[in-house]
Amino acid sequence: MSRPLYNECLLTEDQRERLEIVLVSPRNPLNIGAVARAMANFGFARLKVVAPYGPHWQEARSAVGAEALLCSAAETATLPEAVAGCRPVVGTGTLARRKPEQRVVQLPNLGLLVRQELERGGRVGLVFGPEKHGLTREDLSYCHLLVEIPTDVRQPSMNLGQAVAVCLYELAARSFAANEATGENASDSASAAASGRLELLAGAVERTMVAADYSPVVMREANRHDLRLLLRKLGPTERDVRRILGLFRRILWRLER
Amino acid sequence: MSRPLYNECLLTEDQRERLEIVLVSPRNPLNIGAVARAMANFGFARLKVVAPYGPHWQEARSAVGAEALLCSAAETATLPEAVAGCRPVVGTGTLARRKPEQRVVQLPNLGLLVRQELERGGRVGLVFGPEKHGLTREDLSYCHLLVEIPTDVRQPSMNLGQAVAVCLYELAARSFAANEATGENASDSASAAASGRLELLAGAVERTMVAADYSPVVMREANRHDLRLLLRKLGPTERDVRRILGLFRRILWRLER
Repeated sequence: MSRPLYNECLLTEDQRERLEIVLVSPRNPLNIGAVARAMANFGFARLKVVAPYGPHWQEARSAVGAEALLCSAAETATLPEAVAGCRPVVGTGTLARRKPEQRVVQLPNLGLLVRQELERGGRVGLVFGPEKHGLTREDLSYCHLLVEIPTDVRQPSMNLGQAVAVCLYELAARSFAANEATGENASDSASAAASGRLELLAGAVERTMVAADYSPVVMREANRHDLRLLLRKLGPTERDVRRILGLFRRILWRLER
Repeated sequence: MSRPLYNECLLTEDQRERLEIVLVSPRNPLNIGAVARAMANFGFARLKVVAPYGPHWQEARSAVGAEALLCSAAETATLPEAVAGCRPVVGTGTLARRKPEQRVVQLPNLGLLVRQELERGGRVGLVFGPEKHGLTREDLSYCHLLVEIPTDVRQPSMNLGQAVAVCLYELAARSFAANEATGENASDSASAAASGRLELLAGAVERTMVAADYSPVVMREANRHDLRLLLRKLGPTERDVRRILGLFRRILWRLER
């Protein structure tokens, strides 16, 4: 089974270093911790925090098990300071309550765009607003783009930690899928039982049917046919065939005793 | 500016109704609330909870602002009861600490597969394990597939609420390349047997094993486990199940006479 490793994924270590996650005035220490957790899950380490609420920010940083990236996070007083080295700066949010002034990109379309920038050597900023109301119109005026997570109109607003997780999944882990085989389990099909083995199994099942008086004699030819089709459709491996054969031989031995 | 509305997205209301989120023994009320929030964000409403820790489950349900779907969530004692009507049952987890016994699908490839099942009118179960250790080997034996979220090898384990958010984003909101093919045989899975039927068949095979003295008592648990895996891998249709069940019932009747 070919398991695509994270390391084979789209962004290099160096590129991931140049994606900056920027939190504007986060309030809830649990949310801050959840952001850090999602960053670590998807291999990002650069966190900036704009004008955090002091006590809660300290609490998040000193929490047991806090991610190292929380302790090394940069702190700035304003958003323009935080994103000074970035282009594009990508604001996040829902459009449910605002008329956007920036170009809007749906999250599923952001990956390619961001990857292209990172491949060119640029720094990209991904900005998340405070839990309560999100980024303000002024915050967004520092952004080149507004990315929208396509959510349900009845409940558009996401939890901060979950929004970060979804965005980073899109950027880091979602691949183009073309080269990942989704269908067959290679190792299984490699050892798929040969036709002769299926016939052996069919023979044992058929003898069992006879021994158990499963069906009238006139039906036997039709049953044999259906059984052949069924075994080929189910496609057991050689190992599966050995096990099923073992069971049927045991049953036969008991029935024919 | 053309803003693709959520309603133009991939799943219809009816299809979203047939995706069931199953939480096995969740502990943390905040996580349960976060799961409900993510479900509402992406337009899903069917939640099942298996053997929850009572006080925390009550706390989550009665929290201020708790999603309506928490109050209407179904509760079952065991995982097989929760997923009896579903196919496929998709387990979630990381492969960091286990060697999978099921077919593994990377999350970016799950969307198309699940959508096809939902379009055919089936129910799909998406199962999440307890916060501490995830799904057990036994839990996974009730699953047809294991989906892996591609995370960083240094921090593979995701927070429950974030894992649910990322999975539902992939299923509901992430659009996908039109030419993605999974290699599934459409007509076969169209009438694939529901999990409850596979359990019924497994029960008949197991009784037959006992009646035929197939293996020592100490092996029965392991045999039961392997049998569950085998049936889900072979993927018989409802019609196949009826036929195989008919044969085993006949054999049993003869053996137990």
